[in-house]
Amino acid sequence: MSKLPVLEIFGPTIQGEGMVIGRKTMFVRTAGCDYRCSWCDSAFTWDGSAKQDIRQLTPEAIWEELVALGGDCFDHVTISGGNPALLAAVADLVQLFKTKGIKTALETQGSRWQPWMTAIDDLTLSPKPPSSGMKTHFSVLDSIIEQLLPIGNASLKVVIFDEADFDYAVAVHERYKGIPFFLQVGNADTTTTNQEALTKQLMTRYEWLIDKAMVDPKMNDVRILPQIHTLVWGNKRGV
Amino acid sequence: MSKLPVLEIFGPTIQGEGMVIGRKTMFVRTAGCDYRCSWCDSAFTWDGSAKQDIRQLTPEAIWEELVALGGDCFDHVTISGGNPALLAAVADLVQLFKTKGIKTALETQGSRWQPWMTAIDDLTLSPKPPSSGMKTHFSVLDSIIEQLLPIGNASLKVVIFDEADFDYAVAVHERYKGIPFFLQVGNADTTTTNQEALTKQLMTRYEWLIDKAMVDPKMNDVRILPQIHTLVWGNKRGV
Ligand code: SF4
Ligand code: SF4
Repeated sequence: MSKLPVLEIFGPTIQGEGMVIGRKTMFVRTAGCDYRCSWCDSAFTWDGSAKQDIRQLTPEAIWEELVALGGDCFDHVTISGGNPALLAAVADLVQLFKTKGIKTALETQGSRWQPWMTAIDDLTLSPKPPSSGMKTHFSVLDSIIEQLLPIGNASLKVVIFDEADFDYAVAVHERYKGIPFFLQVGNADTTTTNQEALTKQLMTRYEWLIDKAMVDPKMNDVRILPQIHTLVWGNKRGV
Repeated sequence: MSKLPVLEIFGPTIQGEGMVIGRKTMFVRTAGCDYRCSWCDSAFTWDGSAKQDIRQLTPEAIWEELVALGGDCFDHVTISGGNPALLAAVADLVQLFKTKGIKTALETQGSRWQPWMTAIDDLTLSPKPPSSGMKTHFSVLDSIIEQLLPIGNASLKVVIFDEADFDYAVAVHERYKGIPFFLQVGNADTTTTNQEALTKQLMTRYEWLIDKAMVDPKMNDVRILPQIHTLVWGNKRGV
């Protein structure tokens, strides 16, 4: 059976963002990304700095490690990256989870289609705004959303750092009416260990984002969220 | 047309808790409650202290006020209390909202059934744990959930202050499998204006609650959330 490049397996913890914010979950983080976002908070998945930590694991080996960590204290696994949509082998992992009665969440920027996307319970598509330095492949995203719309398992999440990002988010929301839409405050300082200053800064930016959305009639059917794991644990990894 | 006793109309702002946390919404707060929770954060709705602010308003008058405040910048209204489930006239209000294309959320402790509950989009049932000093009417809650389960519009939310509350939450979750279940950190200090100290205390309690739930196999399919409006605005009213 095919293997997946895995960088982290941890939990149980809470999902800190997006459509199932607060959900008790385990995390599997895969290595590799086709993007290079300027503010990437998991650059170690693609910049070579954690190369020696990447393990090629079968779905069974991943499952065994999840059970060793979580015992019977979980029923939900989040697959994150990097961009897990680069990996065809996610199909086998998700199938295995299904046989174990485990629900699955997955986050990707939406730059690649994978047939297994229809089998994910909570799929977050997070196209990247201008501040990332990346360009959105709208034709790919169109086709992903077209295929997932009838299933109802997908949401859109846009991370916002500035005005241009907000305008981009408005355009994405208008383009994909009918898909649950989340605005998220960007974390501009992914390395600080000053938890108090970070919380303060994030809450100030969150309030700014709320204020922007409140007065925009194009942003009515939206949800605006902070990253709650960052508020609780700061930039610590593996929680 | 029948009138409703209204204490506050405000927004647009975000929903700070529960199943649609982060959602852009307007608020209509009704007066009156059949409970007297020890830690009630809206005691002014029933303790007489805001008696002079209660207005008897028709659904049309409420709508006019919402539009005066929110213009075209909202498509969702949250009805809170007190206990809005004391009021049969909520039926007319929700019907009016439907004709305007407005979605509705409502929160109640679940001590009374109302036929209009089936018409609410996001209904939060928040039975009160032991620390409140109240006793749950489980026969009433059973019957409410039985009627709403096929509609899929309801969630359960239990506010947690201590160990006994947590045990109560486990029992509620086990009793009502299949209803989305939210744990929420209780705000033990609803009067302080020291925002920094409040945030710190709430985050400490939130981490405690997360830790409890993570090691409990009966608490797998749960979502654990803080009140984000309290993190942003503290105990301020009308935001
Ligand atoms: S798409 Fe995600 S993982 Fe890839 S560079 Fe951007 S933020 Fe980082
Ligand atoms: S049920 Fe709600 S409004 Fe009524 S006393 Fe309890 S907390 Fe306050």
